[in-house]
Amino acid sequence: MKAIGFKKSFDLKETNEFEELDLPIPEPSRREILVNVKAASINPVDTKLRTTNEGEFKVLGYDAVGVVEAVGDEVELFHVGDEVYYSGSNMRQGSNAEYQLVDERLVGIKPEHLSYAETAALPLTALTAFEALIEGLSISTNPEDNKDKKLLIINGAGGVGSIATQIAKNLGLTVITTASRKETRRWSEEMGADIVLNHKHHLLDELKAHKINEVDYIFNTHSSDAYFNVMAEMIKPRGRIVALVNFMDKVNLNLLKDKSVTFSFEFMFTRPKYETDDMQAHHEYLRKLTYLLDRGTIKTTLHTKLKGLSVESVTEAHRLIEEGKTIGKIVIEY
Amino acid sequence: MKAIGFKKSFDLKETNEFEELDLPIPEPSRREILVNVKAASINPVDTKLRTTNEGEFKVLGYDAVGVVEAVGDEVELFHVGDEVYYSGSNMRQGSNAEYQLVDERLVGIKPEHLSYAETAALPLTALTAFEALIEGLSISTNPEDNKDKKLLIINGAGGVGSIATQIAKNLGLTVITTASRKETRRWSEEMGADIVLNHKHHLLDELKAHKINEVDYIFNTHSSDAYFNVMAEMIKPRGRIVALVNFMDKVNLNLLKDKSVTFSFEFMFTRPKYETDDMQAHHEYLRKLTYLLDRGTIKTTLHTKLKGLSVESVTEAHRLIEEGKTIGKIVIEY
Repeated sequence: MKAIGFKKSFDLKETNEFEELDLPIPEPSRREILVNVKAASINPVDTKLRTTNEGEFKVLGYDAVGVVEAVGDEVELFHVGDEVYYSGSNMRQGSNAEYQLVDERLVGIKPEHLSYAETAALPLTALTAFEALIEGLSISTNPEDNKDKKLLIINGAGGVGSIATQIAKNLGLTVITTASRKETRRWSEEMGADIVLNHKHHLLDELKAHKINEVDYIFNTHSSDAYFNVMAEMIKPRGRIVALVNFMDKVNLNLLKDKSVTFSFEFMFTRPKYETDDMQAHHEYLRKLTYLLDRGTIKTTLHTKLKGLSVESVTEAHRLIEEGKTIGKIVIEY
Repeated sequence: MKAIGFKKSFDLKETNEFEELDLPIPEPSRREILVNVKAASINPVDTKLRTTNEGEFKVLGYDAVGVVEAVGDEVELFHVGDEVYYSGSNMRQGSNAEYQLVDERLVGIKPEHLSYAETAALPLTALTAFEALIEGLSISTNPEDNKDKKLLIINGAGGVGSIATQIAKNLGLTVITTASRKETRRWSEEMGADIVLNHKHHLLDELKAHKINEVDYIFNTHSSDAYFNVMAEMIKPRGRIVALVNFMDKVNLNLLKDKSVTFSFEFMFTRPKYETDDMQAHHEYLRKLTYLLDRGTIKTTLHTKLKGLSVESVTEAHRLIEEGKTIGKIVIEY
């Protein structure tokens, strides 16, 4: 099978170590399924792993849609021929290949009404958003409980921000996002943002201009260091903050003490990496996502589509992510 | 009325600035009630405020039981003659006085079957424990949900640890505490601890000796700095940590990232200080506490009883707290 990967981590500005190899098609065992990948999206985690990993030939790609080609002997949830989608595990070879193995507990049935490319845009970011909102922020899944609650999403037009906005609106929250360019503001509004703040200005001033002094929840999908202090200012007493990105520096956590604030990290690979007892939560979240997508309640966050699995398309996707100006998601259709 | 307080913050090892004054009995307005205080307990917050506050004559005391003497014109929950208990607000004069004003939303009806001293031991620590467990750690109030869940309480024999152990057992959790002396171990077991670890040893090794590798929840009632690293080691993926004490140093929060851990501060005065919309949560928690106490499901954490409101008794209580070896709670009966 064709696979795009690399052996030594590298800086794309200086060189390109991506190469195409012909690898044997792997065989599923136990709860693994073998998927013939039809499309994959590229996420910031791909570029991060490209610059931090060393060693064996490494295939990246942590979003996929495809068709089940074979199943392990303990597989219960899927059959050969099922169309499925998933993010998978950062501990395995990724989806930048014609075939991939994935644990069935991390997989969902593909929505019927979306194309492969539209579907591939979603699993990693949607799983991140569901976990961040429902577990990290402990937001009720009953919209009645949330009608007076305000959520701030920092970087509303990014991959995670785009789907988190839609899921949060579906949960009944008032959603405030941040963006600065005209096209990112418009995109975030299309995703359902009620208010878009300009993150080039002081966010609390921006918020107060809308006669809002504080928010119940903050989902920071951008730099944890850059926003920590202003999040501590904007959050309501007993409010909750969730973040995706490691800090560069140590943190003055006491800023959260007086208001009894909760801070969570959201790392979507925690369950697959630790193979937690409840890793099938990813299957359940994707089932919910499929339901919402097929009803048209939420829509794909696909923005940029590249054609064909190749060194060129994977390289181009990495370049776009590293420019830091992507809107929604970048997908490669195989 | 008699009140014990001080004007300038001081170190008890060097001097004693506590004095008795005769102050006018305050008058309740709006949602305030005036309480004739019958007993009060002393908490670490008293000694902390004694050494950090300056200025006007300050009356400490953040636990009280007594009889309602008068009510403000908007009071709905209580009548003159009701026996009540509460922690109150750190923004007001405290309970080391014959009479005290308190917002009725922070007050509960005293349990019938407990003495004044037994009751005075409880509100601040129980409110702290309820908020930390149910809000900070998002523990379900349905014991069925918790039967496979493990909670570690650091410093099980302290005031908060003693009541938190009982509340957590009532919520159906397996409770692991820490203690080192023979009498604190025995006290923590009396409060319901299933396992008591010796905090003089490495806590993870201690835990593993009981064939347990990780816990779902950690409630750290002791030094946040001293236990941060070991908490990061002991906590389960997607687990939750709550802490009471400010850090002395900045924190390497990234230790919580890989496991998607949630960290909360619990500060019982957040609601009264910010006068949050939901500050009546304290009334509700105390209602629940009264129910559990009157059924005998949980018991008082009173350990040491001092007689009479005086400079001597308040001083003695502060001394005992500052020695750092208290078991359960210290109460002054007026």
